[in-house]
Amino acid sequence: MPNESRHYFDWASTAVPDYPQLEAQSRFGNPSSLHREGRLAKEALESARTRCASVLNVPPETLYFTSGGTESNCIVLFSHIARQSGGRITASVGEHSSITENLRILDRLGRQTGVIPIDPMGRVTDSILSETLTKYSNARFAAIMAVNNETGTVNDIVNLRKIMVNKEPHIHFHCDMVQAVGKIPIDIAGWGVDSASFSAHKTGGPRGIGLLYLRKPLEVLYSGGGQEKGVRPGTENVNGALAMAHCLETHALPEITAAEHAKAKTRCGRLVSSLKQIGRCRLIPAARESNVYDSDFSPYIVQAAFRDIPGEVMVRALDDLGFAVSTGSACSSLRQERPVLAAMGIDEKTAFEGIRISQGWSTTDEEIDQLSGAIREVLKFL
Amino acid sequence: MPNESRHYFDWASTAVPDYPQLEAQSRFGNPSSLHREGRLAKEALESARTRCASVLNVPPETLYFTSGGTESNCIVLFSHIARQSGGRITASVGEHSSITENLRILDRLGRQTGVIPIDPMGRVTDSILSETLTKYSNARFAAIMAVNNETGTVNDIVNLRKIMVNKEPHIHFHCDMVQAVGKIPIDIAGWGVDSASFSAHKTGGPRGIGLLYLRKPLEVLYSGGGQEKGVRPGTENVNGALAMAHCLETHALPEITAAEHAKAKTRCGRLVSSLKQIGRCRLIPAARESNVYDSDFSPYIVQAAFRDIPGEVMVRALDDLGFAVSTGSACSSLRQERPVLAAMGIDEKTAFEGIRISQGWSTTDEEIDQLSGAIREVLKFL
Repeated sequence: MPNESRHYFDWASTAVPDYPQLEAQSRFGNPSSLHREGRLAKEALESARTRCASVLNVPPETLYFTSGGTESNCIVLFSHIARQSGGRITASVGEHSSITENLRILDRLGRQTGVIPIDPMGRVTDSILSETLTKYSNARFAAIMAVNNETGTVNDIVNLRKIMVNKEPHIHFHCDMVQAVGKIPIDIAGWGVDSASFSAHKTGGPRGIGLLYLRKPLEVLYSGGGQEKGVRPGTENVNGALAMAHCLETHALPEITAAEHAKAKTRCGRLVSSLKQIGRCRLIPAARESNVYDSDFSPYIVQAAFRDIPGEVMVRALDDLGFAVSTGSACSSLRQERPVLAAMGIDEKTAFEGIRISQGWSTTDEEIDQLSGAIREVLKFL
Repeated sequence: MPNESRHYFDWASTAVPDYPQLEAQSRFGNPSSLHREGRLAKEALESARTRCASVLNVPPETLYFTSGGTESNCIVLFSHIARQSGGRITASVGEHSSITENLRILDRLGRQTGVIPIDPMGRVTDSILSETLTKYSNARFAAIMAVNNETGTVNDIVNLRKIMVNKEPHIHFHCDMVQAVGKIPIDIAGWGVDSASFSAHKTGGPRGIGLLYLRKPLEVLYSGGGQEKGVRPGTENVNGALAMAHCLETHALPEITAAEHAKAKTRCGRLVSSLKQIGRCRLIPAARESNVYDSDFSPYIVQAAFRDIPGEVMVRALDDLGFAVSTGSACSSLRQERPVLAAMGIDEKTAFEGIRISQGWSTTDEEIDQLSGAIREVLKFL
């Protein structure tokens, strides 16, 4: 942290970085070049890919480096234009704006699209998906994220996949795992998804680098110099790829994720207990007040509303006291809408009172207690 | 350079980096966040934009950070799908693959496209452009690069703009300036282009960051979190933007570019004189043998063919002797084609004998002489 007196609770927006600085001049060659500098860069890039693949337990050739989660999502969505594929393109209403906004664009361009609803807990349940696929029998694509970025809601990807698996023709299942990797146990191959998105900076890495998993090669829209087997043109960001590999090894190996998840769960329980004692606090969804539903939520993200205090006001008040929290996603903070909470049936007033408290690997019990104290302090005056 | 015994002559593929390493944890916040960390990141991002704008002499609000030159080109080209605009989309045959390949894709998607030829020197001349616009009277878009990445050919952008300027409706003029910035004098506003692309790593910066200049806002295809005023979604790469600003200030201020250009011209003259004395060497185009045409070429890029030695063989032989040169663009080195040289009327055998020698700001006379010596050495044995 740049400032000792600051307490950062906005890890879902971007994690506190902890990647090693690589020498700018090492492996600086263009990986497409035939000479030594190019070959060294290519070797470094492929070693980064192999390391990422090892952590994610998928073949290296299924991973493509991109500039981040948004681009990974866009590549998959807009492949429908490249392939001029038929069928309906569906996505859950809980998806990140890089899915939902682009679904609208595809719709405007004349593609058939459809929205998969979520339940009051923010989940796409088995029955919701079954009903949606009955309604949209021509669905050929479905995007359902692993962990929601605003509420921490976890979707049961493996069960959702089972509902799609026997459909003919095949439904491409895309899973945005940006908030899942390093946070909850993931199993890309076991879940049977067709594609998945990852972002380095949500996992302690730098901006400008992400990953796209593609079970099978995909014809994509943007072309160029043929890099990343044509899936993502542009000179490869070798240092970014190495930093991404480092972050996945540091945070996303299954045993590390499990150990950190257990610790985060304890801290999350501490936070929830404390918030429950605040009369004006309402957890979103209310199910989070009971630990019966623990496995339905990422312990790293908690959404809570404080009666009669707009979320933005609470964010600014806490900021003044040294605590960084957010309202919805950072992306949506510029917009006056909370579509995910609305889809969960949260009334508009409460939705706009919501703040997102997202912790990370280095968050301490003391910080959790200090945050609760700061919220109580704010509530005294507002 | 990672190795003292190496001599790098592939700056057009990627420059030797010389940007300062920024602390990963400074300004790490998400610029869209409302809290202090977010505001500091936003301030840093906007300061980077202002610095870039100052060097490029354009208003800061016309510059958008992207992941690089390829993405900048793609954003502009695929805006035609977003806008469902009519009219023909044209581009010179000399453009980078991120233009030419995507023109083919737009064609395949049913858009009217057209190719602007080049002359034997690799230029889009006034008469070529006039004829093309007569042939394609419904042209609404033209992409013509400032400096060709394979031959160093300089297009006279200001004169080409004049030919388009009175057409009704307006022809959007896109100029890929990736190989021009910091190398030859540029004047974005004076040239009157509607959009321009830039890449940091060609100018001493890191991978994964570039700029798009848009004279007026443009409706683009990919959407998301609304960053960069909707032109380029995805969490902003703040450290990349700061590195880009540093590189532009270091290399692209007009007086620096002019001074370096003069020095590069002297070194280029030295190289050309030396190559002319090699019997089996043919400069591409042959016009480069005379300094009458100096202003038609960037001194940083020289293309030369050596009789009966495939370019790839020469590249490998020179690599063994410690010299990094390339064939065509790094992107095209994986492909067996030289479309730009073919369009200049170079026969196929000669085209495949071509190598690209591209120098940079730190290249010395001694290295030029050593390279000429190494080429003579190779020719003795092959």
